[in-house]
Amino acid sequence: MNLSNRLESMQFSTIRKLAPFAEDAKKRGVSVYHLNIGQPDIHTPSTFMEGINNFTDKVLKYENSQGMDPLIESFIKYYLEWNIKLSKSEILVTNGGSEAILFAFMAICDPGDEIIIPEPFYTNYNGLADLASVKVIPFITKAEDGFHLPSKDEITSKITKKTRAIMVSNPGNPTGVVYTQAEIRMLADIVKENDIFLISDEVYREFVYDDLKYTSALYMKDIEDKIILIDSISKRYSACGARIGLVASKHKHLMAQMIKLGQSRLCVPVIEQVAAANLINTPKSYFTEVKKEYEERRNILYKYLLKIPGVVCEKPTGAFYIVAKLPVKSAEDFAKWLLTDFNYNNKTVMVAPAQGFYATKGLGINEIRLSYCLNTTALKDAMEILGIAIKKYVELNN
Amino acid sequence: MNLSNRLESMQFSTIRKLAPFAEDAKKRGVSVYHLNIGQPDIHTPSTFMEGINNFTDKVLKYENSQGMDPLIESFIKYYLEWNIKLSKSEILVTNGGSEAILFAFMAICDPGDEIIIPEPFYTNYNGLADLASVKVIPFITKAEDGFHLPSKDEITSKITKKTRAIMVSNPGNPTGVVYTQAEIRMLADIVKENDIFLISDEVYREFVYDDLKYTSALYMKDIEDKIILIDSISKRYSACGARIGLVASKHKHLMAQMIKLGQSRLCVPVIEQVAAANLINTPKSYFTEVKKEYEERRNILYKYLLKIPGVVCEKPTGAFYIVAKLPVKSAEDFAKWLLTDFNYNNKTVMVAPAQGFYATKGLGINEIRLSYCLNTTALKDAMEILGIAIKKYVELNN
Repeated sequence: MNLSNRLESMQFSTIRKLAPFAEDAKKRGVSVYHLNIGQPDIHTPSTFMEGINNFTDKVLKYENSQGMDPLIESFIKYYLEWNIKLSKSEILVTNGGSEAILFAFMAICDPGDEIIIPEPFYTNYNGLADLASVKVIPFITKAEDGFHLPSKDEITSKITKKTRAIMVSNPGNPTGVVYTQAEIRMLADIVKENDIFLISDEVYREFVYDDLKYTSALYMKDIEDKIILIDSISKRYSACGARIGLVASKHKHLMAQMIKLGQSRLCVPVIEQVAAANLINTPKSYFTEVKKEYEERRNILYKYLLKIPGVVCEKPTGAFYIVAKLPVKSAEDFAKWLLTDFNYNNKTVMVAPAQGFYATKGLGINEIRLSYCLNTTALKDAMEILGIAIKKYVELNN
Repeated sequence: MNLSNRLESMQFSTIRKLAPFAEDAKKRGVSVYHLNIGQPDIHTPSTFMEGINNFTDKVLKYENSQGMDPLIESFIKYYLEWNIKLSKSEILVTNGGSEAILFAFMAICDPGDEIIIPEPFYTNYNGLADLASVKVIPFITKAEDGFHLPSKDEITSKITKKTRAIMVSNPGNPTGVVYTQAEIRMLADIVKENDIFLISDEVYREFVYDDLKYTSALYMKDIEDKIILIDSISKRYSACGARIGLVASKHKHLMAQMIKLGQSRLCVPVIEQVAAANLINTPKSYFTEVKKEYEERRNILYKYLLKIPGVVCEKPTGAFYIVAKLPVKSAEDFAKWLLTDFNYNNKTVMVAPAQGFYATKGLGINEIRLSYCLNTTALKDAMEILGIAIKKYVELNN
């Protein structure tokens, strides 16, 4: 009695492979600095738990499949601050950005249809595509280019009759890229000329550094009915465990149909929705401080990376990640070695081999993704140790 | 730019069709007794909200994809009370029973594979099957038989090379049936002899009346690796809005693979899990009282139905629903008329036309599902009014 092919062929999360080695290291008394996960260490604003006090019903009942009104209204208010006008019928609350992506895939793709995505991309896009029986068609972006988009022709060459959308994460995970207005305009032109959707994952919208201008896909008003917005409270409010996100579009028929997907799972958890609806009352100072903190961490990370011989990377301008090319044959082997063989004063680091962020086999083999979800003191120590480790690993392998 | 076929062909939830008419009735000053929804009115035990106090982390972070340990441990403890031994590796916490079903479908079916389900069945099975691109193959059960299972041959005649499982809800929604041990044994024999799975949706396990014995599929120890259990806290603890459920199986490889599905959506909401982990501390008196209340409501419902000329139904022995055949041509038309044309002293009732619970077109056209999610006083009034309405509708249409 076999399981389904779609399940058997799906990848386990790449972090899983290394997790046991991290556990063993800790058991041996080695401290592990986690530069591998995108889980923020920043405190969740108190407005979230305070929001829970707004739940006073005696019966924890199903709520509207579309999402609860106070939460939707808080989202509408939030977007206005970004000069994005979304109305209630254009928003569907989801179980995190994950469900938003799954719903977008299922809404516009039948099994076997294709979504074009620049690689390296957020590894879960693969898993969600597998769930939806959708094929990811990648096009390459490179460390040397700071992972900015290639030419229009390069992208359009990937379009087939099964293509339903291009999907981007902006700012990007794992690359930390922030697309320029010209790049967003180019994507807008591509979807317009080819009558496909643009799925824009903007969960890191706040995390843009160096006073760079952020261009939301929704600023491209001439294609607004071709845009499917993916969003989440996870990164913005360091509330990953709440699993509250949304999918939104000005494509009326799409949103009118997409509610069926919401109905099939009845509704999104109520307590989290009630709590999340209060996040709109988080003081602006929270965001200023968080952004300043991440920008400082980005600076530290980049400064230390530049000092390591053989490392290739550009300065990331958004999110809280960087993908760096290392002077190694196999980043997976290096990442494992960091946990099994290496320590410096009983400390080591865990990094994410970037292979898992590519669809194309053979790419990213010598790349790692680092997140900067550690306080600055720990981050400096971690990067110091990483530098020492890379030098040692290179010596051992030459 | 079309949407996907799978979305366009998916049904809206059937309640949607009638909801606007109910709204209008209320606007006209008519009170509507909701006998149509499966949303319990019973209070959620205080242990749930008290459980929230156990969450003290400053960062609401992602938790384990499999589910949080205290919650899983509480489930293991719960099942022992039912003489069911499940271990941690055999349980995956899900976003409600809905996600459990979706995961079960995706884990064992590739697009186009088949699941055999007795009809009438819980209408969301259709929606979830659509999401998973899975085909529902129904076999009929009848009001005259109290919706008990037909012969073994009748069921096995539906098996094709694409069949991956039989799925049952026991106790049943919408029928209120409680399968006998012999029926569960028959299903066990069928899956054993045909090497398919048995997906057993047991979310109404507590709601068994008349001191009937309840037989969980997991009591069939000779096929325990062929069973996929679907469960939820929604009905048991009147906590539908929490969206906490689980999928469980003793099929080791299945559960080892299914974690990938959990990983693809990262984790289940954390606050709800922390709260739900405390539900195991709910006093037994809560369940005794709730069950007594529902049994009394079941008695009232059945008593009143028996008095209405032309109504055919058997006494339901579980869950909180009954499917009754009415002396009408179209239950959908009757349900609508109840809201648009009828009232008795400015009161009316809303019922669920049973057509939506069948896969086979043309079935259930003169049937309705009633839930008894109203207090006994309101229920008696509602049933009185329903009786009057049916008599009037029959007169008008003869």
